[in-house]
Amino acid sequence: MTIMIEIKVLDHGFIRLVDKMGDDAAIVQAARVSYGTGTKTVNEDEGLIRYLMRHHHTTPFEMCEVKFHCKMPIFVARQWVRHRTANINEYSARYSVLEREFYVPEEGQIALQSATNKQGRGEPLDLYRARRAASVFDREWQRSYNVYMDLLGTDEKPGVARELARTVLPTNIYTQWYWKCDLHNIFRFLKLRMDSHAQYEIRVYAEAMAKIIQELFPIAYRAFEDYQLNARTFSGPAVMLLREMVGDLGRDTVTLPEGMSQREWQEFQKELGLL
Amino acid sequence: MTIMIEIKVLDHGFIRLVDKMGDDAAIVQAARVSYGTGTKTVNEDEGLIRYLMRHHHTTPFEMCEVKFHCKMPIFVARQWVRHRTANINEYSARYSVLEREFYVPEEGQIALQSATNKQGRGEPLDLYRARRAASVFDREWQRSYNVYMDLLGTDEKPGVARELARTVLPTNIYTQWYWKCDLHNIFRFLKLRMDSHAQYEIRVYAEAMAKIIQELFPIAYRAFEDYQLNARTFSGPAVMLLREMVGDLGRDTVTLPEGMSQREWQEFQKELGLL
Amino acid sequence: MTIMIEIKVLDHGFIRLVDKMGDDAAIVQAARVSYGTGTKTVNEDEGLIRYLMRHHHTTPFEMCEVKFHCKMPIFVARQWVRHRTANINEYSARYSVLEREFYVPEEGQIALQSATNKQGRGEPLDLYRARRAASVFDREWQRSYNVYMDLLGTDEKPGVARELARTVLPTNIYTQWYWKCDLHNIFRFLKLRMDSHAQYEIRVYAEAMAKIIQELFPIAYRAFEDYQLNARTFSGPAVMLLREMVGDLGRDTVTLPEGMSQREWQEFQKELGLL
Amino acid sequence: MTIMIEIKVLDHGFIRLVDKMGDDAAIVQAARVSYGTGTKTVNEDEGLIRYLMRHHHTTPFEMCEVKFHCKMPIFVARQWVRHRTANINEYSARYSVLEREFYVPEEGQIALQSATNKQGRGEPLDLYRARRAASVFDREWQRSYNVYMDLLGTDEKPGVARELARTVLPTNIYTQWYWKCDLHNIFRFLKLRMDSHAQYEIRVYAEAMAKIIQELFPIAYRAFEDYQLNARTFSGPAVMLLREMVGDLGRDTVTLPEGMSQREWQEFQKELGLL
Repeated sequence: MTIMIEIKVLDHGFIRLVDKMGDDAAIVQAARVSYGTGTKTVNEDEGLIRYLMRHHHTTPFEMCEVKFHCKMPIFVARQWVRHRTANINEYSARYSVLEREFYVPEEGQIALQSATNKQGRGEPLDLYRARRAASVFDREWQRSYNVYMDLLGTDEKPGVARELARTVLPTNIYTQWYWKCDLHNIFRFLKLRMDSHAQYEIRVYAEAMAKIIQELFPIAYRAFEDYQLNARTFSGPAVMLLREMVGDLGRDTVTLPEGMSQREWQEFQKELGLL
Repeated sequence: MTIMIEIKVLDHGFIRLVDKMGDDAAIVQAARVSYGTGTKTVNEDEGLIRYLMRHHHTTPFEMCEVKFHCKMPIFVARQWVRHRTANINEYSARYSVLEREFYVPEEGQIALQSATNKQGRGEPLDLYRARRAASVFDREWQRSYNVYMDLLGTDEKPGVARELARTVLPTNIYTQWYWKCDLHNIFRFLKLRMDSHAQYEIRVYAEAMAKIIQELFPIAYRAFEDYQLNARTFSGPAVMLLREMVGDLGRDTVTLPEGMSQREWQEFQKELGLL
Repeated sequence: MTIMIEIKVLDHGFIRLVDKMGDDAAIVQAARVSYGTGTKTVNEDEGLIRYLMRHHHTTPFEMCEVKFHCKMPIFVARQWVRHRTANINEYSARYSVLEREFYVPEEGQIALQSATNKQGRGEPLDLYRARRAASVFDREWQRSYNVYMDLLGTDEKPGVARELARTVLPTNIYTQWYWKCDLHNIFRFLKLRMDSHAQYEIRVYAEAMAKIIQELFPIAYRAFEDYQLNARTFSGPAVMLLREMVGDLGRDTVTLPEGMSQREWQEFQKELGLL
Repeated sequence: MTIMIEIKVLDHGFIRLVDKMGDDAAIVQAARVSYGTGTKTVNEDEGLIRYLMRHHHTTPFEMCEVKFHCKMPIFVARQWVRHRTANINEYSARYSVLEREFYVPEEGQIALQSATNKQGRGEPLDLYRARRAASVFDREWQRSYNVYMDLLGTDEKPGVARELARTVLPTNIYTQWYWKCDLHNIFRFLKLRMDSHAQYEIRVYAEAMAKIIQELFPIAYRAFEDYQLNARTFSGPAVMLLREMVGDLGRDTVTLPEGMSQREWQEFQKELGLL
């Protein structure tokens, strides 16, 4: 492979493309196996990919696979690992000594607990307190790393085993891994982790990954944006309400918008009870 | 377990509840582990379950598990088995002789290929031809089963091995299995297989299963109906269009509908750009 | 990709390599991420791959992926699909008409039920009866396919919908799919399906797949042969017994065999209580 | 459920049984679905369970499920979470403040890096240095927790958001989760984590879990001990060697050992080329 894409993330992290299987054409190729000779009429690849994405036909997207080398703080890795369909090879702090690299948030990222969102950040701290907090983060990791080194001892005078010494290190230390996942599940990762409720520090990794995916699968990525990332789900009762709200408008007030296929336009109108 | 629920499906099939782990309260219990002391204010279980469902917090639903004994034609089993997170123990036609039970569609179910839907049924056949087709289905399985028996031979004069003889049997012969799945993935099964595009013969199994699930998890099932089964997803462009369509109506024309929480109502209005 | 490997299997089937991610070097590369700087001394790739396989360090093997196009009888597909970590896109008989291709066993494969193995074949039938059985298989699929065609009707006079008509077809009709799986799980597939207890008709697919895997990952495949395919597991009590049996022999009677590393030799002796 | 089993692990941790689905009889029940009428002769449940375990027929074990409430240090949770088939609900340090509980190893557990095992512990430190190390662990977590509290601020003067403040805490702080897994995959967890190469701190959790499993599934657990935990796998070349070593002994020197079935005894002798 001669592809070499690497995107820096946070202060010491990165996402680096290692390998990939498939492209937009591979999605189409797999889908056409399912449809057999019955698909003669679907002759446009982009249309087919968008159709598959819109109707949750997920298996053709599973036919592509992407492998990344990633470096991120442990607290980010702990959220990331919950995506269980991926394959992972992580750096082992039982085998090797962890490097002296820790995440220290930029002042602009140091914020109060959100008043409305129990799990997120709200207003930034004022500059004075943000700076003070940043210096605390900075001082703390240095102290912890020194204790870690101390516990490990030296070649002449070895100390505590690595698997034990590392337990004093905070979760903002960087780890790294190879991470491989199929495209369907990458899209699920992106949907969840690019969301505004995701913690900022994993969101920036998701955004970096999205850029690489967009590069590798431009058509599928655009479909993902339209039908997943920017899509909105309305509950049964909410759909009833929507129908009521737009009921009087009829089909006259609005027209087929750019970028929406004739078929989608009809589906849309049917959903709203206009057809 | 003293629960005994069995629902007949198609001409010889059934879904029978074998065992279950958890109930609505178990979903809440698992969710509260995640939220810890931070959830003091969420004091209503139903509200919490609906919140979890609405915001795709799927892990608490995975904490419940249901085990069924099911009997269905092989062509139904072939669609069913694609739900990969379930655990399955199927009757083995290598070990044992298959029983003389085949699916013959009722006349009302014998229909033409759909003109609009490449994968489904359209108009029913006229009565005369439907009857003729039904008798073909009926005659065919009898003939196949006789050939199967013939190939197997008798105790005195044994014939072809079971694993080979069974290959002449059509996919409308019944098989059976134990099928166990967590509640989150059961809901995914129901969402896909209760859909109007699912083949009728698996849809009736999904509907039977839904009845049992509703019995066991009444609150979660209601949330599933509102936020998944009857919910509709609109693409990014479609949401833009919706906003435009309802834009002039403001919040005045409609009011908080029954069954929608204050919080959902606000989310709904925000989604449409009304707040 | 310019690789083009296709192996014919049974009378109408095949396994065709479509794409692959990774090779032996990719396994090593992933493993070294885990070991970090601590692996300086492991300088031989083959040694590392064999070590990983021997000690069930499976994640580096998951970092490779292979995609096949396969064609096989439905009864084979039904066993194959139970390997749940694979991704599958199967030909849909709801969308398209199935082709006129059925598996008819060769006379030499037509055997009696095994007397000792409840799920397998035993002695071949005598030639006369084998021929008679073969002609039954042959006649049957032809009749079934004609009925299928009849039910489908013609363009002028369309009959029963495809999704229903296909249910009369026997499970020895061929289907096809794209099948993608990581290398670790491919090895599990091979271990189970190359086993002498696997049905002959899936075993030949596993053997064909093994040939392709051996071509793509020669070192990993050799390790698989030694540590999985040809390896044997002895129960706790059996190991006790083994120790007793070889106890008096000591290390003198046998010497380090060719192809066994010094390290394995020591592990072996330890296991037997000789060290 | 009235079952209430809780086992204390390490200084502040525990494993507590929350719920379970199935028992030894449920394994048999599921297996008999597969075997159908063909199993009339297998009339002993224990024999069947042992047969299933010995021959890697894993699906009947998947038909049982156990749910635990566990509390353990984050560095243990990080190893544990790699078992991907389990369902998890973890305490969220984004929602709630983490409690003041950290793992401090007992002096006897504070050991040097192993000289032979790159990933493990070797000789214990001498008492003086072990005590000094223990006091370092102890002092460190107290300092870290104070810094955490400081960053969080007070109700009157709130500080940094929880999701950010927690990043200074070391991985020996305790977290907790609900963890649910099927019995087959629990056995895989136990096999890997009860192994002498597993880190001590997760091994003690596996041992506690094993006690509960043994209580709930006594027959299956005994089979697991014999055919997995205490079993040993010999490579293809090693089996050749074994045959050579025991070749001259014949069947005469040893006899059917207690606890080994006649069938196993034959399999054993066949494996060694004695039959």
